[in-house]
Amino acid sequence: MSRKEFRDLADPEAAREAIASLELRPDDETVPLREARGRVLAERVDAELDVPGFDRASVDGYAVRAADTFGADEAEPARLELVGEVHAGVEPDVEVGDGECAEVSTGAVLPPGADAVVMVERTDRVSRSDTERSRGEGERSESEPRDAEGDDVLVRTSLAPGDRVMFAGADVAAGERALGPGTVLTSREIGLLSALGVDEVPVRGRPTVGIISTGDELVRPGDPLNSDAGEIYDVNSYTTATAVEEAGGEARLYPHAGDDYDAMESVLREAAAECDLVLSSGSTSASAVDVIYRVVEESGELLLHGVAVKPGKPMLVGRLAGSAYVGLPGYPVSALTIFRTFVAPAIREAAGLPEPQTATVEGSMAVRERYEEGRLRYMPVGLVTDGDGETLVYPVDKGSGATTSLVEADGVVAVPPDVEYLDADERVEVQLFSPDVRPPAVFGAGEDDPALSRLLDRVERPRYLGVGSRQGARRLRDGVTDVAVLTGEADPDGAVELGGWSREWGLLVPEGNPKGVEGVADLVDREVRFVNRTTDSGLRTTLGNAVADLADERGVDRHSLVEGIDGFEFAVRAHESPARKVLAGAADAGLGLRATAESLGMGFVACGEESVRVVASEARREKPGVRDFETALASVEDVVADLPGYRAE
Amino acid sequence: MSRKEFRDLADPEAAREAIASLELRPDDETVPLREARGRVLAERVDAELDVPGFDRASVDGYAVRAADTFGADEAEPARLELVGEVHAGVEPDVEVGDGECAEVSTGAVLPPGADAVVMVERTDRVSRSDTERSRGEGERSESEPRDAEGDDVLVRTSLAPGDRVMFAGADVAAGERALGPGTVLTSREIGLLSALGVDEVPVRGRPTVGIISTGDELVRPGDPLNSDAGEIYDVNSYTTATAVEEAGGEARLYPHAGDDYDAMESVLREAAAECDLVLSSGSTSASAVDVIYRVVEESGELLLHGVAVKPGKPMLVGRLAGSAYVGLPGYPVSALTIFRTFVAPAIREAAGLPEPQTATVEGSMAVRERYEEGRLRYMPVGLVTDGDGETLVYPVDKGSGATTSLVEADGVVAVPPDVEYLDADERVEVQLFSPDVRPPAVFGAGEDDPALSRLLDRVERPRYLGVGSRQGARRLRDGVTDVAVLTGEADPDGAVELGGWSREWGLLVPEGNPKGVEGVADLVDREVRFVNRTTDSGLRTTLGNAVADLADERGVDRHSLVEGIDGFEFAVRAHESPARKVLAGAADAGLGLRATAESLGMGFVACGEESVRVVASEARREKPGVRDFETALASVEDVVADLPGYRAE
Repeated sequence: MSRKEFRDLADPEAAREAIASLELRPDDETVPLREARGRVLAERVDAELDVPGFDRASVDGYAVRAADTFGADEAEPARLELVGEVHAGVEPDVEVGDGECAEVSTGAVLPPGADAVVMVERTDRVSRSDTERSRGEGERSESEPRDAEGDDVLVRTSLAPGDRVMFAGADVAAGERALGPGTVLTSREIGLLSALGVDEVPVRGRPTVGIISTGDELVRPGDPLNSDAGEIYDVNSYTTATAVEEAGGEARLYPHAGDDYDAMESVLREAAAECDLVLSSGSTSASAVDVIYRVVEESGELLLHGVAVKPGKPMLVGRLAGSAYVGLPGYPVSALTIFRTFVAPAIREAAGLPEPQTATVEGSMAVRERYEEGRLRYMPVGLVTDGDGETLVYPVDKGSGATTSLVEADGVVAVPPDVEYLDADERVEVQLFSPDVRPPAVFGAGEDDPALSRLLDRVERPRYLGVGSRQGARRLRDGVTDVAVLTGEADPDGAVELGGWSREWGLLVPEGNPKGVEGVADLVDREVRFVNRTTDSGLRTTLGNAVADLADERGVDRHSLVEGIDGFEFAVRAHESPARKVLAGAADAGLGLRATAESLGMGFVACGEESVRVVASEARREKPGVRDFETALASVEDVVADLPGYRAE
Repeated sequence: MSRKEFRDLADPEAAREAIASLELRPDDETVPLREARGRVLAERVDAELDVPGFDRASVDGYAVRAADTFGADEAEPARLELVGEVHAGVEPDVEVGDGECAEVSTGAVLPPGADAVVMVERTDRVSRSDTERSRGEGERSESEPRDAEGDDVLVRTSLAPGDRVMFAGADVAAGERALGPGTVLTSREIGLLSALGVDEVPVRGRPTVGIISTGDELVRPGDPLNSDAGEIYDVNSYTTATAVEEAGGEARLYPHAGDDYDAMESVLREAAAECDLVLSSGSTSASAVDVIYRVVEESGELLLHGVAVKPGKPMLVGRLAGSAYVGLPGYPVSALTIFRTFVAPAIREAAGLPEPQTATVEGSMAVRERYEEGRLRYMPVGLVTDGDGETLVYPVDKGSGATTSLVEADGVVAVPPDVEYLDADERVEVQLFSPDVRPPAVFGAGEDDPALSRLLDRVERPRYLGVGSRQGARRLRDGVTDVAVLTGEADPDGAVELGGWSREWGLLVPEGNPKGVEGVADLVDREVRFVNRTTDSGLRTTLGNAVADLADERGVDRHSLVEGIDGFEFAVRAHESPARKVLAGAADAGLGLRATAESLGMGFVACGEESVRVVASEARREKPGVRDFETALASVEDVVADLPGYRAE
């Protein structure tokens, strides 16, 4: 193998600087205002016109000369001759002289001669023939001759010049600075730009990020998968593309290049020509690394290869023809970690976007966690809120190769090289994978169960880990989870029961039960290839108890019976897994539930009923998400009604 | 006028319930995974396959039978015969028997017979011819005959079954609940769905929201504007459309219907047929309200008209044929306020989206604010951080008719009907207009100046209000702003000077100075129509001082000179405004700057120089944004280099 070794790992700061030195900033562009949401202004926008562009009536009423109303009040209104009207959006065809007024709508142009508007509510409109009656009240306005026809207006208040008028430019004056470069355009900025008549705006370009998928084993989601040949779905391409968009870049997926040398080189060169940045995630094959190396060295510059950070050691930073290049690690959580901590800031910077306020969150460690020293480490963590609504942070302990930890891990905590451990309750800062990430409303772990899946559908923002009863109880005890779902496991201390149900368990066999399996004894006594659940599973404990009962009955050692079961140690993880092994012909009988057998059209040999209990940590009992879960549990009867073998308890 | 009156205003809670009773939720839809970012899962997604789909090597190394390595260590490695290799993405063509091993790449299928993988780092590969030399070290693996050709592998560690192997389904098992309904899809959920091979997902539909613009005076941005006819640009359509998108809806703008009865009716019916919700913002014309009324009554149901909330009294809620209808107030800030507080939550609910964490923020009132009692009031407020980084909230005091307050107002504070005042330092919750809104990094107010505009371009996230020196000093004194930009105004107490510049001021006249104006004296002595700045402006104070000097010189009263200036009270707001009045022929000379004259190609009569000082509140001196501004000020020489009449000070 010509595998490269990374002996001199770069300092993480040097990696950050190398990435910062890449030029990712695309040209500015002009976009229609209607499509400018979330974009960043590239240049200052000064007002090119006055807003409003004219002296504008602010209310429905009458345009007057303020001097004509001096001293007027309810008792002694001023009487003005109505000489016309002006509606919004129409050029006034009337002038207001001394002792005159014009009806105006809100938004109308103030007619020439007028300098104030009186609200309609402070006036009365009277017919000219009332003149005699009201003469005594309104002398001020009686100085001029008028038509016998038409109306007069009684103004029952005194006005000052400018009252209820918005003067031209009072809101925005032409020449004023309206918005500066770097402004993120939200609804209100779009509003201001609309007011200025701007219909296209100069904005920062979005960096184009090309994503290259390498590795012969990778298959695009939706395409058929050959598991026997070790094919897996390509996780990093879509994950990274989405993360690029979350950071304000534009993602472009390139066709899968496999491990073919020439094909990969041509895809790399194409992406480099079209994008500001090219990302690939660590191929497991040496040849892919070699091609990338060669292309970077031939038509660019390798800035560094290997960074002293865990995960991400094999990170590669360089320049390709006309583009920047960063190689991410291969495991999904590792790739997202390095993207989040090194690449996303550079994309945001290039796009001119600030880091979202919700990009990081503070919390306290829920448990103590030890580290190997010597290298900066990004620890994937999950968030959970405790009973007081405080944020707790717990390490996600699945290996980074697990795609499920993608969903369990809310972000990462940077642990400096010299830190040996983080103590429980220690304050840490979490860099979230996406700004939209938030702690689950309720966090549970334990048994994997079809009724539970349905219950969780009725709860808002749950997080549930089907790790089995044993792990479920442990996590509750450790103060990590809010609830545990248990069977065949004692309730942990400090737990209160929220509810539960019972389920019928037994042996799942092919349709028609070709081997004629009748119960647990047949596993011991006959040639039946069995498939069990893993030791964390409560169902396995239940089976173990049945075997122990059988041993008692026969007066033999439990162990000797277990030894007689072909496949007792052939253990798989989830509730449907044994059934699927049986369906695939890898076993004759599997441990499982009647509900599973019926949903998969299999035969079922009943062995008993077991209780499933949902318990909550006492300290989290009043947490809204826990109460929400408890409410859902109250309708468990509904939920299990059509699940064969289930009973509400 | 047939204007409707709103005598029985609905309770705000009733309005909220009326809106909640409207059915906005669109059908679920299926979208490609690649376009699913930010969407909300409509249904639970269970895993349909195991991940990984096969027993997978987790490292580069050798697949072995763990039992063959029991007891092996650095001193006594186990020696295994290398019988083949398996690469990722390839079906194994080799089986591993006792004493054998196969080379595997990370991600490769574990070949049949093997049950563990040893990392390449813990092995040595040796040629078969070394057999004799090493026989003593590795007896355990020497039980079978082997070819003389080929390699052996020395394993320098003991393995347990399962080491460095990820078993099929260990990550996700077929049948497991992967993601629940209501999950917002961020990069990591997209990653999990990719791993499951899902390429399209069932998501909640985005409610379609039709936006109707009514009012003859409204012109779409980009179209020509006739200000003389009282036309203004339509602010609410784009603002509301953007706010709809921010809330997770899909906005559709309908062609401007003006006030034409039939046209408006047909647009309303079209929008109702196509959308889940139709919004219009309060037309200023009674006829528009009438049409909406009629259409709602004819083909739907009017639920309420008029809500006891300020702003938003004329809010209208009803059902149109096949759609919901909400009428928003007409002023932009009012429309956005009602949208934010009543409509956005309904759109989010219909879209299945949670309220963003940043939708609200807490802070302390910067100043005391009084209210009229009697009605729930949404007070538009701005945010600013004090010297300790705490969030302060200040009322935005421009009338809601101002579009600039759109940008000054970060959100609204709900003030209950019985509250008479909010005290300074009182804690309030601000509902932000957009989740992306954040306090400005530096907040200033004062003189409007072209050099300042350029300086602000060099500062990150500034907010600056060109309200003149007097208001600028007042706001700094009130503890609202961080900095003030002053001329002709004493520094407020507790202010420290950050820097400044001087600018040449004088009279702006048409090109060629047709009236031959020579100075301030000519304004008094000759027939010159003058246009001044408003009293808040420092430049006006400077002019006042020049008039006072002239009065001293002549031994007359200052007031008598002012009286002799035609237009001394004809005052406009911003630094370019007088110039534009002169250009428009509304005056012969205007107060202004040499820089403005040159940029607009006008004549200039120099009258003197005045200092512009930037001062900061002592308490905010160390605020990062203030320091950033101070840094920008240090390069003021650069900034003013090409501004005629400017000097750095």
